[in-house]
Amino acid sequence: MTDEAYLRQAIALAEANVREAGGRPFGAVVVKDGRVVATGVNEIGATGDPTAHAELSAMRQAAKALGTPRLDGCVVYASGQPCPMCLAAMHMTGVAAVRFAYSNAQGEPYGLSTAMVYAQMAKPLEAQALDVRHTPMGDPAIYRAWKGVAQG
Amino acid sequence: MTDEAYLRQAIALAEANVREAGGRPFGAVVVKDGRVVATGVNEIGATGDPTAHAELSAMRQAAKALGTPRLDGCVVYASGQPCPMCLAAMHMTGVAAVRFAYSNAQGEPYGLSTAMVYAQMAKPLEAQALDVRHTPMGDPAIYRAWKGVAQG
Repeated sequence: MTDEAYLRQAIALAEANVREAGGRPFGAVVVKDGRVVATGVNEIGATGDPTAHAELSAMRQAAKALGTPRLDGCVVYASGQPCPMCLAAMHMTGVAAVRFAYSNAQGEPYGLSTAMVYAQMAKPLEAQALDVRHTPMGDPAIYRAWKGVAQG
Repeated sequence: MTDEAYLRQAIALAEANVREAGGRPFGAVVVKDGRVVATGVNEIGATGDPTAHAELSAMRQAAKALGTPRLDGCVVYASGQPCPMCLAAMHMTGVAAVRFAYSNAQGEPYGLSTAMVYAQMAKPLEAQALDVRHTPMGDPAIYRAWKGVAQG
């Protein structure tokens, strides 16, 4: 299947989520070696879970289906441009590629853009709207313990 | 309780996760109106879920406990500096503040820093190591349908 065919599948999932579940218009498909290993839709409304974005849910399902938290070699097809939460998860799990159908610019008129979240996260920590701060608590002994490094 | 007391609680959770569950050294506590509403530890190893970071898990639990996906007014205390996945989730759910005990710089010698993920995400999409691309699929009809806007 082509990129466009997988994207049509992601869009169809988004459409069904709106029409059948009253959900938000987002769908995602995870493909590995030419095979769909998982799909997801936005289920924040249905589940109350604020992290239940289509892409994150599809990635969690893909990890379950593949039996590993690593998604190396996977391609994620998303109906909408991934938000920074989902994009970071893709980076960290080793997803190989992402294709999305509708950009943040296209979502903007409908309130379906995360450009403002990206803009916030592009700022230094101390300049972000979210009050995020390092409160030093000394030496990270738990990191040493985890690494099994003998304490000096 | 003070910020430091909640951070000690997050660190204690991280420590127990390493010693008792063989997990990674990360813990988080979500506080609202001076009350702990949820906690979390890194459970990637135990669950195989790549998104099971301490903060994200604690936020999902907090949403469940509070009965809403919105976390406005919540403060997240994390043993380690939040990765961009978790930070973005904090921005999007309305978390008011975040305090973390150990920075990425402190985690770096132990391979426990996400500075490289932040660096990737600071680049324009086309320059990121992850091959992420907008594949235009025309007009976002599903966005219009979701908004209930009559098609012209």
